[in-house]
Amino acid sequence: MTSDQLKIQPPVKVLDWIGDARRGYLRLLDQTLLPNEETYLDCKDTQAVHDAIKRLVVRGAPALGVAGGYAMVVASQWISDGDDFYIGLEAAAEYLESSRPTAVNLSWAVQRVLRRAQRTISSNCDDIREVMLEEAIAIHHEDEHLCMEIGKLAAPLISECSAVLTHCNAGALATAGIGTATAGMYVAHFSGHQFTVYCDETRPLLQGSRLTAWELQHAGIDAVVITDNMAGAVMAEGKVQMVITGADRIAANGDAANKIGTYSVAVLAKRHNIPFYIAAPYSTFDMSLASGAEIPIEQRGSEEITNGFGRRTAPENIKTYSPAFDVTPAELITAIITDRGIIKPVTTENVRKVIGNQ
Amino acid sequence: MTSDQLKIQPPVKVLDWIGDARRGYLRLLDQTLLPNEETYLDCKDTQAVHDAIKRLVVRGAPALGVAGGYAMVVASQWISDGDDFYIGLEAAAEYLESSRPTAVNLSWAVQRVLRRAQRTISSNCDDIREVMLEEAIAIHHEDEHLCMEIGKLAAPLISECSAVLTHCNAGALATAGIGTATAGMYVAHFSGHQFTVYCDETRPLLQGSRLTAWELQHAGIDAVVITDNMAGAVMAEGKVQMVITGADRIAANGDAANKIGTYSVAVLAKRHNIPFYIAAPYSTFDMSLASGAEIPIEQRGSEEITNGFGRRTAPENIKTYSPAFDVTPAELITAIITDRGIIKPVTTENVRKVIGNQ
Repeated sequence: MTSDQLKIQPPVKVLDWIGDARRGYLRLLDQTLLPNEETYLDCKDTQAVHDAIKRLVVRGAPALGVAGGYAMVVASQWISDGDDFYIGLEAAAEYLESSRPTAVNLSWAVQRVLRRAQRTISSNCDDIREVMLEEAIAIHHEDEHLCMEIGKLAAPLISECSAVLTHCNAGALATAGIGTATAGMYVAHFSGHQFTVYCDETRPLLQGSRLTAWELQHAGIDAVVITDNMAGAVMAEGKVQMVITGADRIAANGDAANKIGTYSVAVLAKRHNIPFYIAAPYSTFDMSLASGAEIPIEQRGSEEITNGFGRRTAPENIKTYSPAFDVTPAELITAIITDRGIIKPVTTENVRKVIGNQ
Repeated sequence: MTSDQLKIQPPVKVLDWIGDARRGYLRLLDQTLLPNEETYLDCKDTQAVHDAIKRLVVRGAPALGVAGGYAMVVASQWISDGDDFYIGLEAAAEYLESSRPTAVNLSWAVQRVLRRAQRTISSNCDDIREVMLEEAIAIHHEDEHLCMEIGKLAAPLISECSAVLTHCNAGALATAGIGTATAGMYVAHFSGHQFTVYCDETRPLLQGSRLTAWELQHAGIDAVVITDNMAGAVMAEGKVQMVITGADRIAANGDAANKIGTYSVAVLAKRHNIPFYIAAPYSTFDMSLASGAEIPIEQRGSEEITNGFGRRTAPENIKTYSPAFDVTPAELITAIITDRGIIKPVTTENVRKVIGNQ
């Protein structure tokens, strides 16, 4: 089956463009309300998109990129036709990028749509808005495509398992497509394979129980939520045959930073001889870093641990330690599944072969 | 320093008997309100004690035993003097035991106080109530003593560390003394050693953040709360030099069942060459079980995972898997610290040497 033949809809539309370039708008699934409410937010001006991104209505690096592209089209509608049109676009780009300053994909997509506008030779601003929308849609389709390529490579692995385990959400909700870690699950499910996905709830922010379990359930895939500390028992009881997670940044030697707790899952998988896979597009690789030791780890505030869910669950004034990510060394990773191919075994040489030098 | 010389007060009184045998009552720290409120509940009739135990106002096997002993004295106050006094006591015992039918220590203590009453030759019921209180106090003191013995053996190990990690609450709040896993911490702290305790929050019921962090903070020990999935990162960063937890049941070969997640911590400790200790009194050993495979594992309901924090954090109708305990194999346990001595290495032979055949 070729890439063009296989087209699987994600279980949920994280975002969509409604209407034309002149009067259309960006529709976002409000992920802050999941899993309790499935509400869509229509962003019709620049401020609205900016705030939605800032509030994590949309999250996940790939999805942020796609949202950023469309956000530029929304912004263009509020800039008057005339000589200052490009100046207005540049200001809008800067403003939009400021909503999540660390999200590389957001800035990358905003700049890409801006450059496309700047290269368009037309005195009709509506023509420019149209090519901007064209570019935003292209970014959207590319993201769908990357997910699908990962899915096709991961699906045969999923198809050998009666159950797999995942951590956090590297799912459809984090992309415009069928996700990264989840992509193989959706493809395998589409082809009729029945299996169970154990979802680590993923403290402190519970992306596993709030988001991954929700989207798998939507897709009709058998999802089971466990607390993070149950993964070891699940493996010891022989319940899962593979682990697959996403990654936030991968060094040149294959060391992978991902949501806190991923490392523990990898160590447990190793003990139980369960293969541990990472699924990520080529853009996740940072070839400027020789190893995971160079990946900076964001520290989060206390509140997510002590007051995570509307009530206080730790003493006042207690200390916390809260790294947002940990690094799984390449030696614990059975393979990295990318849109450009599978890296196995995970070595500096094999990473370069599949990903190139970027 | 002998056992008699060293007497350390626990950081908090979990329970206490107030007054004499005739008009006294059982005072319980209401652990359901921790860490937000430090409220004491005075139980002055049988029903009140029964309900308090059922609601987990007091919890932890050793503490339940001590509460059960005092509960019998409370019950005796509501039984009229006369020929039916013993019949009334027997009925009260049965009723009290029904409050937590699986807690062996509760039933054991209730029966012990009942037997002491039955053996007392006196026509004056107040005399009988007095010997019952004497027996309840003896149980209380024995529990304090077991904790202290464990503490004295564990303290030298703690004293070699700048930081240790623990899981769940095997603390003063679970006993009438200075706890089991925490006992060595309190003794080391008493002797002037400064160190940090990383407390796994321990999902789903958060005994680590709600209880362990709270009691250590009360004692002036430096406590840091982490989510369970951060233990691996804490170890990888070299932050802790040992792990110590309690146990719920230990088989004859040293395999130990404890709160879910303990096994994962032990696997991570092994990877990082960090010693992993279990602290437990002799009564935790079940010599009738050859190995941990025979220990029955209680399964809990969905709600603790999906609705644990006062609001829903997983989709409606999602499946969960929720074992309350896991089994850490003896090979991962550096030593078991008991009131009767240290078992090291953890083998069937060494368990029998220290614990006997029970």
